[in-house]
Amino acid sequence: MPHARTVLITGGQGFLGRHVARAFANDGWKVTAIGHGTWSEDELKRWGVSVWHSCDVTLDSLITHGGEPNVIVHCAGSGQVSFSLAHPLQDFERTVDSTAAALEFVRTHVPNATMLFVSSAAVYGEVLTGRINEEVPPAPISPYGVHKYLGEQLCKAYSGTFGLRVLVVRFFSLYGPWLRKQLLWDACNRLTSGSAEFFGTGKELRDWLHVSDAAALILTLTKANSDSYKVINGGTGVGVPVSDILAALSVALGKRDAVVFTGEERPGNPSRLVADVALARSMGWEPKYDWRRGVREYTDWFRSIT
Amino acid sequence: MPHARTVLITGGQGFLGRHVARAFANDGWKVTAIGHGTWSEDELKRWGVSVWHSCDVTLDSLITHGGEPNVIVHCAGSGQVSFSLAHPLQDFERTVDSTAAALEFVRTHVPNATMLFVSSAAVYGEVLTGRINEEVPPAPISPYGVHKYLGEQLCKAYSGTFGLRVLVVRFFSLYGPWLRKQLLWDACNRLTSGSAEFFGTGKELRDWLHVSDAAALILTLTKANSDSYKVINGGTGVGVPVSDILAALSVALGKRDAVVFTGEERPGNPSRLVADVALARSMGWEPKYDWRRGVREYTDWFRSIT
Repeated sequence: MPHARTVLITGGQGFLGRHVARAFANDGWKVTAIGHGTWSEDELKRWGVSVWHSCDVTLDSLITHGGEPNVIVHCAGSGQVSFSLAHPLQDFERTVDSTAAALEFVRTHVPNATMLFVSSAAVYGEVLTGRINEEVPPAPISPYGVHKYLGEQLCKAYSGTFGLRVLVVRFFSLYGPWLRKQLLWDACNRLTSGSAEFFGTGKELRDWLHVSDAAALILTLTKANSDSYKVINGGTGVGVPVSDILAALSVALGKRDAVVFTGEERPGNPSRLVADVALARSMGWEPKYDWRRGVREYTDWFRSIT
Repeated sequence: MPHARTVLITGGQGFLGRHVARAFANDGWKVTAIGHGTWSEDELKRWGVSVWHSCDVTLDSLITHGGEPNVIVHCAGSGQVSFSLAHPLQDFERTVDSTAAALEFVRTHVPNATMLFVSSAAVYGEVLTGRINEEVPPAPISPYGVHKYLGEQLCKAYSGTFGLRVLVVRFFSLYGPWLRKQLLWDACNRLTSGSAEFFGTGKELRDWLHVSDAAALILTLTKANSDSYKVINGGTGVGVPVSDILAALSVALGKRDAVVFTGEERPGNPSRLVADVALARSMGWEPKYDWRRGVREYTDWFRSIT
């Protein structure tokens, strides 16, 4: 029997990281994860993590704890436009410095591994019409988006110069159980505490991808044959106005107050981000969640923990 | 009498940094500099530096030692394609991390200061014909060029998001006294020790800008009114084959051996980099050195120290 393949997940206790761990474990991989936080034995088992180290993602920590993985899924990094506007240097360090470290680890220690970098649709910036495919030139409008794009450019340069295999997935709006930040999390907290006013116009279009579909996409991509450097959108192709998803959330939480919007546009937040996912589909992946089902599941989870 | 304006120079003891210090001091500015190395009192006086701190360029060191400058000239960073290929993470840290720190220092402590980022023609990559103007899309082919371009993008993002005034100068091939790295330095050492064989074809075109012209350009730009973000080429517009400048160097050193080339192209080194400098000229600056005069001066300096 061949040895199990091993995956190293950075940011392993984050929202996406833990779901990625579960997906690889379910597929028979040995999962090593690093990042911030503590986990009980029960939690490690629950998420399928064999080895966990709590540490920053640096070249030293990767050399010490990274082992010799076949695949590295680099989930560590910042995750919010608002944080990046308030703390741009920390956002840069979390996203770009950690990516530079991960790439150097691959170059110097596991040059035959596949590295997957979790990027974001925020790199596209303000694209006014249609679904966005991977050929649209990036033009980020927030520090968060800029930093993700800088990370991508490092990936491309390392791949081109040193022959590494690097995949970049630009995720649109991820959501699902264990998401404890961003719009849906804030909205659940606000709606259950009686505040129903939200920034923005409500007309902003977002493409909501369930985190288990996202983890399945990552698993599919790392197993597929592909070019040494490739950028792939992760979304569903369905654009949902923020007002619609918040209304569904409100109903699912049993709140009758109508959601109200301030009408102010938020800096750094594009008015629409909807994916063209033909490329991901062509690699044998298909999202399974309808957003309405996902919202109900999310509110069930929210109520189970509060 | 008004207080003298103050300039903070990072990488102040580097080749460009010290000439920039001298140029600002000559113009009546108070010069603070940080970077690596030690300087005697005589040397500080010689280069016009009032305050020197030996340290890495980090947000902490800038807050501690940076004062409240009117202008920051960010010269710190890596300076060689070959180093970046051998040590890409260190090259990244020196160039990109230090730029992120400098921008954050400006944003949080001196938001009305002008920051000037020393970039490189290496961001252009392989441009096959003509003189390169600032509108040519960057396409770097070495980690060094990629990292300079990432630094530029941070500058642009900070300027756009936080309203900072940031100037980027893309220098072509800088040279002059106190240059102790790169082609001319290596060539002086090799030719005086009897080795006359060089990598490359000798046909590579470079645009040689004397370091005192470069420092004068930086001084001119920081004093000019301009947009909040601007990219300016620093060069002469004259393309000189590497074989010609090495032949002139060999003659100036009194060596009769013909310079020989291996004919191998070096990875990461474009075949031509010649500047269109119309923009810099339009701002009232003009290079003063002919490259032949500069080469004779450089070999005089080289002989004075060896």
